Amino acid sequence: MIDDIVAAAKRIEGHAVRTPLLNSPLLDADAGRRIFVKAECLQKTGSFKYRGARNAVSSLTDEKRARGVIAFSSGNHAQGVALSAREMSAPAVIIMPSDAPQMKIDNTRALGAEVVLYDRANEDRDEIGDKLASERGLELIRPFDDLRTIAGQGTCGLEIAEQAHAANIGAANVLVCCGGGGLTSGISIALKANAPDLVPRPVEPEGFDDVKRSLATGAIQTNNRRSGSLCDAIVTPSPGKLTFPIMKAHCGTGIAVTEDEALRAMAVAFRRLKIVLEPGGAVALAAALYHRDDDNDVIAVASGGNVDSTVFQMALDKYGTGDARC
Amino acid sequence: MIDDIVAAAKRIEGHAVRTPLLNSPLLDADAGRRIFVKAECLQKTGSFKYRGARNAVSSLTDEKRARGVIAFSSGNHAQGVALSAREMSAPAVIIMPSDAPQMKIDNTRALGAEVVLYDRANEDRDEIGDKLASERGLELIRPFDDLRTIAGQGTCGLEIAEQAHAANIGAANVLVCCGGGGLTSGISIALKANAPDLVPRPVEPEGFDDVKRSLATGAIQTNNRRSGSLCDAIVTPSPGKLTFPIMKAHCGTGIAVTEDEALRAMAVAFRRLKIVLEPGGAVALAAALYHRDDDNDVIAVASGGNVDSTVFQMALDKYGTGDARC
Repeated sequence: MIDDIVAAAKRIEGHAVRTPLLNSPLLDADAGRRIFVKAECLQKTGSFKYRGARNAVSSLTDEKRARGVIAFSSGNHAQGVALSAREMSAPAVIIMPSDAPQMKIDNTRALGAEVVLYDRANEDRDEIGDKLASERGLELIRPFDDLRTIAGQGTCGLEIAEQAHAANIGAANVLVCCGGGGLTSGISIALKANAPDLVPRPVEPEGFDDVKRSLATGAIQTNNRRSGSLCDAIVTPSPGKLTFPIMKAHCGTGIAVTEDEALRAMAVAFRRLKIVLEPGGAVALAAALYHRDDDNDVIAVASGGNVDSTVFQMALDKYGTGDARC
Repeated sequence: MIDDIVAAAKRIEGHAVRTPLLNSPLLDADAGRRIFVKAECLQKTGSFKYRGARNAVSSLTDEKRARGVIAFSSGNHAQGVALSAREMSAPAVIIMPSDAPQMKIDNTRALGAEVVLYDRANEDRDEIGDKLASERGLELIRPFDDLRTIAGQGTCGLEIAEQAHAANIGAANVLVCCGGGGLTSGISIALKANAPDLVPRPVEPEGFDDVKRSLATGAIQTNNRRSGSLCDAIVTPSPGKLTFPIMKAHCGTGIAVTEDEALRAMAVAFRRLKIVLEPGGAVALAAALYHRDDDNDVIAVASGGNVDSTVFQMALDKYGTGDARC
């Protein structure tokens, strides 16, 4: 599959941001080791999701692309698909729950997509989606269990391999914020091929650590709760059917962090790296800071920064002032 | 002087961050034109100052470097010099007022510098500095009126020229947060040589617009007030003797923005670009958003992100929620 990732990198070149691998000497001094942060919050639409979406839309035939694409998402995948489609003049339909945050609905519309709202309690989103897709001949782009999506997210791993080499990083863990596993599995394939000393490890919020438990047991596990996490961007019921075998083959042990650790990592990223992270995008940095299990350099993928100011202020209220150490 | 900037770029390569030129489709939609942000807040130590400091320290002879460097600064220049010196194993002395924020004193010490505090009311910092410099043979690195510093800051302009070309930006203003003019003059030389369609324009806070008035009158003007701006990082009494003639030769009209506009731009940068800006680092973006005088693409240099959480929260309290438009 590495060939698909290399092909994806060519497709998205000049469109996706080659995000920097950030480092802070003051953070390193606090932590006692080098911490590098792959700043995917600086990706177009504020998260890595643009990579997979752009790759999927651009790999369609002209005919299919002209008919359009459809996606289910209340969050980052919606914006990635909407922008990719608009850039390539493809119609895009995004199915969102009617109780999704107004800002996300507005942003998705502002990116040119047709937003179809459904009532979570009384309507079946798959039914609505299937009907629209077949009526209009739309192509479904899945948020993680889709080879085109996985290949697109894998381009982040190609960049990490190159940037780690340039920074003289030897053996290191690469901590990845993990929902359904699209980003983690894509990165894991790229690292296996180009930087085998870098070991990908999925990071999840406590209580939603389906991937960690699936890796530990060797079989797909499901979360009891489906919602109610501050880290909503990376909460999924279970790893994907395509992503899980890839993660099983290439990833180290999973790590689960608390919501409070994610908020603390957001404040550290604010203070030391000058980037804005959403809670779900901060769990990998939280693992690097508060769940350390070796003294090596470490790379944390900061997967997204789409956070409301109220949640960001909560992180700064708790951890923004006082003790300047992490 | 373009040769000095090219030489500086070689010296700092692999040490300084090649900061990204960020863009947000949603911000462009709000603004009705393309806005690009050169994110120098992501530079090492959180501001562009590392560029000039690293160039100055690395251009010393081995013998001079071994004796060490000295700088006067309560802010970003201090951290840039301290880190550059530590990286090259040079002793560094930073003279700071005893009432500087404790965090800045702590950060400068954490970067390995010897911090010498002086009492603003009763002591003369130049006297203290001269005495230390002559006793120990230290090399003074000035924050802006120093050709080595200007050449280092100019490397930001080389990158802007390349990145603007890659983004198909034609004729455009390049808005630069301006204090003493080190960054503005350096960038102006680089653009004149490599991208003459890009016009540098200094941006300052209202009430501290010495450069704007100096350019308008053709002679160096001084601010009445010396302190009391939220944009403290870019408040200086007047443009430099070296920087002013360069700016006069190459820059367009200056722009002055209010503190409130700077806070509003900080909230926009948080929401749309996922970067943390200090008020002084946000004035250029504020000018792009609220002092528009053409419909062209525009580039704003976001010069730094070293802001206390209390000031950042002030920006989010005022402009973080509610209307999502800029």
